[in-house]
Amino acid sequence: MPKEKKYANLEFIMHPKSVAIVGASDNADKIGHIIMHNYIDEGYPGRIYPINIKSTGTIMGRKAYKSVLDVKAKIDLAVIAVPAEIVPAVLDECGKAGVKSAVVISGGFAEVGNVALQDELVRVAKKYAMPVIGPNCLGVMDPRSRVDTLFLPTFKIDKPSIGGVSFVSQSGAVGSSVLDMINSEGFGLARFISYGNAAVVDEVDILNYLMRDKETKVIIFYIEGAKRGKEFIEIAKKITKIKPVVIIKGGITEAGAGAAHSHTAALTGSAGAYEAVFRQFGFSIANDLKDLLNFAKVFETQPLTTGNRVAIITNGGGTGVLATDALYKNGLTLATLSKESEEELKKTMPSIVNVRLPLDLAGDADDKRFSEALSVMEKDENVDALIVIALFQTPGADSKLAASLIQFGTTMKKPMVVISMGGSYTQAHRTMMESSGVPVYSSPNEAADSLAALIDYSKYRKGIV
Amino acid sequence: MPKEKKYANLEFIMHPKSVAIVGASDNADKIGHIIMHNYIDEGYPGRIYPINIKSTGTIMGRKAYKSVLDVKAKIDLAVIAVPAEIVPAVLDECGKAGVKSAVVISGGFAEVGNVALQDELVRVAKKYAMPVIGPNCLGVMDPRSRVDTLFLPTFKIDKPSIGGVSFVSQSGAVGSSVLDMINSEGFGLARFISYGNAAVVDEVDILNYLMRDKETKVIIFYIEGAKRGKEFIEIAKKITKIKPVVIIKGGITEAGAGAAHSHTAALTGSAGAYEAVFRQFGFSIANDLKDLLNFAKVFETQPLTTGNRVAIITNGGGTGVLATDALYKNGLTLATLSKESEEELKKTMPSIVNVRLPLDLAGDADDKRFSEALSVMEKDENVDALIVIALFQTPGADSKLAASLIQFGTTMKKPMVVISMGGSYTQAHRTMMESSGVPVYSSPNEAADSLAALIDYSKYRKGIV
Repeated sequence: MPKEKKYANLEFIMHPKSVAIVGASDNADKIGHIIMHNYIDEGYPGRIYPINIKSTGTIMGRKAYKSVLDVKAKIDLAVIAVPAEIVPAVLDECGKAGVKSAVVISGGFAEVGNVALQDELVRVAKKYAMPVIGPNCLGVMDPRSRVDTLFLPTFKIDKPSIGGVSFVSQSGAVGSSVLDMINSEGFGLARFISYGNAAVVDEVDILNYLMRDKETKVIIFYIEGAKRGKEFIEIAKKITKIKPVVIIKGGITEAGAGAAHSHTAALTGSAGAYEAVFRQFGFSIANDLKDLLNFAKVFETQPLTTGNRVAIITNGGGTGVLATDALYKNGLTLATLSKESEEELKKTMPSIVNVRLPLDLAGDADDKRFSEALSVMEKDENVDALIVIALFQTPGADSKLAASLIQFGTTMKKPMVVISMGGSYTQAHRTMMESSGVPVYSSPNEAADSLAALIDYSKYRKGIV
Repeated sequence: MPKEKKYANLEFIMHPKSVAIVGASDNADKIGHIIMHNYIDEGYPGRIYPINIKSTGTIMGRKAYKSVLDVKAKIDLAVIAVPAEIVPAVLDECGKAGVKSAVVISGGFAEVGNVALQDELVRVAKKYAMPVIGPNCLGVMDPRSRVDTLFLPTFKIDKPSIGGVSFVSQSGAVGSSVLDMINSEGFGLARFISYGNAAVVDEVDILNYLMRDKETKVIIFYIEGAKRGKEFIEIAKKITKIKPVVIIKGGITEAGAGAAHSHTAALTGSAGAYEAVFRQFGFSIANDLKDLLNFAKVFETQPLTTGNRVAIITNGGGTGVLATDALYKNGLTLATLSKESEEELKKTMPSIVNVRLPLDLAGDADDKRFSEALSVMEKDENVDALIVIALFQTPGADSKLAASLIQFGTTMKKPMVVISMGGSYTQAHRTMMESSGVPVYSSPNEAADSLAALIDYSKYRKGIV
């Protein structure tokens, strides 16, 4: 099956004009029921064909079919949620019926030792040159096309809004829990792809698709192992020249690799080999799932910069100290203000403010004092990037401050990240800022790590590293 | 001033029967107003004396005095929030009036170069052998005695509930923002002490007090520098034999140390020297403010263990892989189940569950399957501690699962931590578990780091390291 064909056909998976749900059911406990419910509930605009071999009339109020062969209309995507042993036969019917693509939700293949059954699935897919995601996966979600093959109760997941971050996960569990956190992190989703055993469509195909996908600005990726090493390196070389890829590899220790093998039958290879490839080709390496979310925010919203001289502005001295430490731990440095900046700050700041970085605006700083400091930093050519610590517990910090930070954080030509730590009052202001495109972090380390990821990637793109 | 006297008198700061608020005002913008409001609002049961040199009658409806000398009644604590230059004179009046202790909120001393003024403050405190916290601090909060000298608007901070964790912070900003996060982390506060410039009462005195304090089970500590190195080492030696101390030092890089000096005029010393002392005497070193909260939770609720063989139970394979990696990064190991455990699990688990660690209970696991696995791990002598990954996005995970985890997590004789990542449905279940004494983390690394801190400390206590 030629690579281009696979790539082209992923379009049918993400943007199908018609969907057959094989295993659809009126029984609310069945996976096919939940998936069909999602399509209806989310207002999927295409045709939906419920398929169930036992069906006699309608399923969920729609005309049902015993087989895709009975539909007699174009089907772009078949979502298959039936017992593993009959999946190859169902897929063969899909091929005969001219179905363009499939997502196999069902588990019970290589991951539990049924390698022969998985081989049979692959054989059928190849016979019809059909792109198949799975088996043993959650499938795909696309908030624009309202495709959603996830068989999870909708009330259990905070649906992400529409955005520019695509999330690829070999693991369904990592996929669903990270997906569920996206909304509270304030950025939006382009595509979600949980690809499980990667029997047909694999990492390489997905990256190839997302590289060319205009809606995808940033990719975050949980991977356990790549089957086609050479092709993976080829696509890795290309993709990071176009958009950032934040990656976390499961199984980087020997014990973890063993666990990964029994999870998705992944050939995990040596951790060192993967990390070397990731670094060489400009992937941003996440050390924790939280990094996926933290890095995604800064990449989606902030401009690139190859400079590493960072200004820290704070209304809390101790947090400024910790942020300074966090900068240096990440190989970044504190900027030194120009003479002009110092002069200007001396004019506008009250006498208690010591005009040096980290700039401690003092506990009574309000939005005006922050804005004055920010406009100085914006102009200062010695400053490449900014960390603004805005603690909302202090009397002067309120929604006007959030508004000022939004103004600077969305218009400056330098990257800016915000640190705001706290409870419900702070969370309300974080939400304001994040929904407007300013990345906010709840610890000095997370902010500095994320800014460093942005700067490292910028240098890779410019060929500096 | 003898050390014991200082220690004894911190009682008057934390549990005063009467409080004079110097700088009290009817003007709601004044710090003295906010502090007095806190005392009234929180139902402080002792006597409150508003003091203001300009006062003519009442302040906030209570009889006001021009000076503490006019009160003619016992005053246990004076909270002083007046301009820096008159603080020494006010403190002298307190001494003359027999006030037992003071908290000086006012800034404008050594931290802005006014060393002479701070020396004068110290001279007065010594003259009356009066324990003084501050200057340049937020002061203290004690949810039991309802003492609260924080001058922050109450609606901006989620007040912590009563608990066993005491939080000490040299920095007011770090203090208020971490304090504000305690509530959502699900543990309760014993004492909060923000001590600023440490002119009189310092780190050593505070640790001395908290070491003997029965309500304090765990101490979390933000420090920029200790003035009395020798005494600090003495108390460090003693305190960690009695209770865990989680510490984060601001200014561990050269640039950070410079920032710390201009913040609280701290003599920060070399980072290496501090870290050596911390490690030698069994402090748990936090690398990020989040670690303070994460470690506090496990120390407050879970039993100690010197074994490092950890069982991982999960309803999501990928997260189990990442947790395994995180264990080994922390020097812990995956346990190997006993033959008996394997046999028992084979009997009770469905055939899709592979009976080895990490134990993947599969995406359809419910509370019963988790409970069966947990009761096996509880008995298995090859298992020292547990990480339970409970992803609430899956169909089988609901409040019954939370209840089962609460049962095991609060009765087992082995430490157990839970990983639950997600949005609002997950957060609701996290709250259930945390408010019942089960520590829950939102990433594999945070869970493993925290469990490792507990095990490292256990080894220190048993003299193993």
